[in-house]
Amino acid sequence: MDKLKVVLDEKDMPRQWYNLAADLPTPLLPPLGPDGRPVKPEMLRPVFPDNLIEQEISSKRWITIPDEIRQILALWRPSPLYRARRLEKALGTPARIYYKHEGVSPPGSHKPNTAVPQAWYNKQFGIKRLTTETGAGQWGSALAFACALIGLECKVYMVRISFDQKPFRRLMMETWGATCVPSPSNETQAGRDILAKMPDTPGSLGIAISEAIEAAVTDPTGQTRYALGSVLNHVLLHQTIIGLEAKKQLKKIGEKKVDVITACAGGGSNFAGIAFPFLADKIAGAQIDIIPVEPQSCPTMTRAPFAYDHGDTAKMTPLLAMHSLGHTFVPPAIHAGGLRYHGMAPLVSAAIQDKLVTPRAYHQLKCYESAVLWARTEGFIPAPETAHAIACVIDEARKAKEEGKEKVILFCWSGHGLMDLSGYDAYFRGKLSDFALPEEEMAKSLAAIKDLPKPPTGCIKR
Amino acid sequence: MDKLKVVLDEKDMPRQWYNLAADLPTPLLPPLGPDGRPVKPEMLRPVFPDNLIEQEISSKRWITIPDEIRQILALWRPSPLYRARRLEKALGTPARIYYKHEGVSPPGSHKPNTAVPQAWYNKQFGIKRLTTETGAGQWGSALAFACALIGLECKVYMVRISFDQKPFRRLMMETWGATCVPSPSNETQAGRDILAKMPDTPGSLGIAISEAIEAAVTDPTGQTRYALGSVLNHVLLHQTIIGLEAKKQLKKIGEKKVDVITACAGGGSNFAGIAFPFLADKIAGAQIDIIPVEPQSCPTMTRAPFAYDHGDTAKMTPLLAMHSLGHTFVPPAIHAGGLRYHGMAPLVSAAIQDKLVTPRAYHQLKCYESAVLWARTEGFIPAPETAHAIACVIDEARKAKEEGKEKVILFCWSGHGLMDLSGYDAYFRGKLSDFALPEEEMAKSLAAIKDLPKPPTGCIKR
Repeated sequence: MDKLKVVLDEKDMPRQWYNLAADLPTPLLPPLGPDGRPVKPEMLRPVFPDNLIEQEISSKRWITIPDEIRQILALWRPSPLYRARRLEKALGTPARIYYKHEGVSPPGSHKPNTAVPQAWYNKQFGIKRLTTETGAGQWGSALAFACALIGLECKVYMVRISFDQKPFRRLMMETWGATCVPSPSNETQAGRDILAKMPDTPGSLGIAISEAIEAAVTDPTGQTRYALGSVLNHVLLHQTIIGLEAKKQLKKIGEKKVDVITACAGGGSNFAGIAFPFLADKIAGAQIDIIPVEPQSCPTMTRAPFAYDHGDTAKMTPLLAMHSLGHTFVPPAIHAGGLRYHGMAPLVSAAIQDKLVTPRAYHQLKCYESAVLWARTEGFIPAPETAHAIACVIDEARKAKEEGKEKVILFCWSGHGLMDLSGYDAYFRGKLSDFALPEEEMAKSLAAIKDLPKPPTGCIKR
Repeated sequence: MDKLKVVLDEKDMPRQWYNLAADLPTPLLPPLGPDGRPVKPEMLRPVFPDNLIEQEISSKRWITIPDEIRQILALWRPSPLYRARRLEKALGTPARIYYKHEGVSPPGSHKPNTAVPQAWYNKQFGIKRLTTETGAGQWGSALAFACALIGLECKVYMVRISFDQKPFRRLMMETWGATCVPSPSNETQAGRDILAKMPDTPGSLGIAISEAIEAAVTDPTGQTRYALGSVLNHVLLHQTIIGLEAKKQLKKIGEKKVDVITACAGGGSNFAGIAFPFLADKIAGAQIDIIPVEPQSCPTMTRAPFAYDHGDTAKMTPLLAMHSLGHTFVPPAIHAGGLRYHGMAPLVSAAIQDKLVTPRAYHQLKCYESAVLWARTEGFIPAPETAHAIACVIDEARKAKEEGKEKVILFCWSGHGLMDLSGYDAYFRGKLSDFALPEEEMAKSLAAIKDLPKPPTGCIKR
């Protein structure tokens, strides 16, 4: 029998997270406050607990994972590393394709890798309740799960159109005991303001973030904080457990070198999770093609400038140095809801600036076509976000075939698509189409950031 | 850290299935044909391929699992054996609770353990196409998955009301390339007859079975066969890989004795899968409480007689010696769709007759309450069917606490509930109620079998 899975024992789960900030050739630019000056850590205290702020600004290379967190992660970690032998055979490629199966977690994606530590650090800090926003529900359900196991209340502001159209993710949150309300809601000033102006708005992630932050910072007991599912440094840090495990697993089966690494990137955490531990090797001289993949319809990395911009529409967050389409950007309704964010994590953006990674964009029809080929060869049905990475894997495997090279391709299978089958339905019925963002639309949304401070040009090498 | 999962390498996957028929104290009664005489194996040839008929009637104790089947099962097998430490703690029980997590398969349940071998044996026999029926869609999606990987066409007759109300399972089947039509359909005589009489019928499993069998046996090319997801001997045989793995895993961590084994039982295959390998030990003298669990609303094992009855409403199948509520029985619409079958597998029924297992019935509200406690302690959201086993586990763990005994409880976590969240929704909103089958209703449905041949009374010991 040909080996399909590399499994590790729980005791071999990594004991530290890897912090790319320690190794980036160009130091990260600081977030800026409303006054255009660097944000001081204490300014974040109403939003995040001190222990997570410490991680957010840390430049330590290795950060210890507390055993109590590892004990919860052990419910599904180490996740299996699979070899996609049936796909290889279907493509006739000499490449060896490996994937980390993050769909094995209770909520079915990589998101709980950070939801669990975030909930744990908040609990440690004496916090009783977390608020967050969610679009399609992937992140909201992960945080609801983590709060259930750790013993925190959880309040999720879910974009109204998803709340109405995707009841199953909301039901997952409720099953784990979280409260989920459609956003905009009447519970916050931000929500009420929007509803007064646009009573029939379908909502947006930007509005939901504003509501969740407001609900956290205005709690008079001071025992509520906010949690974010991607973009920030500490979130990406927690996800590096994916790549660190993959390294151990590849070593276990004697794979000495990886040639290509890919993952989809919405806010950037799933990509960072698999790629950053290998990026350290690349910085040290290894030859690896590292490819974050995004939709053509939301081309943050491939077409948007590296700029200072807000993380939310209502401009409640500090300015982050990142690739951004502008905080007012509203992407078209593609089915990969997790890839519709206007910005990209500062750490991933910095790696793009340093030419360490080479982003790529795909159209959704090609992604669904790839997802269906995957399901019919490898069995597991991928999330539409994951399908973007699969499209890239298939291209790279075909390239290896043309070149006659035995490449090793590694990617993050970020989550299953069992809650996203309506996208497959639309695809099978010919109701999906491709959409490349027109120049003039992009120019319009970029106008929102033209008066904001600019990052320094040129690289400041250490 | 406390160990949560016992994982086995693929090479340690069992190489043989266990056949309980070899060890039952009372020999199995033969299926009977329309003439009331034992069915000859060749009479089954239009329905099943010869290699599966051979397994169906085999009394060999061990049957080798072909390596090509093990290679596909390795996509998710050996499934992890978990210890439910958080539930133990929440209950304050001295019992150690272990569960086999069958939700890790691509379709999310134990069903592909038999779908894969059934598809493989059909393919070996030269068959091109399989037909089957499905209620809620658990079995249909498992067979669609297996056919995609093995290269067979797959046609699924799905009970119309589920087809309309549960589009996600149908979409899973379509993603794997199967064709799924609502039953009754216009494609079979059985379907057309029903539609002529009842154009608005919501359909039933009995009708769908009739259509699937008809479609298989009337294919003029002779290259179509029918596949069943439970009840029959060969189906239960394939599921014993669950219990065989569990034995290896318990041994690996030094657990010498199991005190209680439980699983839900609809047609009986999931229960048989975990229990039969241990039943062999019980027959040899071990003390184990083995408890199949069913809903109070469909009390096949706890209240129905052991009788000869048809497997389908239209009486197309042979008569099987089993506990049965009567082939016309229509159970109320409880959410555990997989537990609504009128009969029980002959092998499980025989084990009940031999007093080797002690069935139990639970109401659905208690099951949902147990499922929610499970989700909030152990993380994974169980299927409503699985919730029946969890209810039993919780009762047994509390009993162990009262008795102050360190019992070892093992059960089969047969599948996740991510496609069944509407049941949770109904539960949370107070829309579910309990329903015990009234005596007079049971008497009415049992009238359908009063003129059928009767199994001999008393035990024929070997």
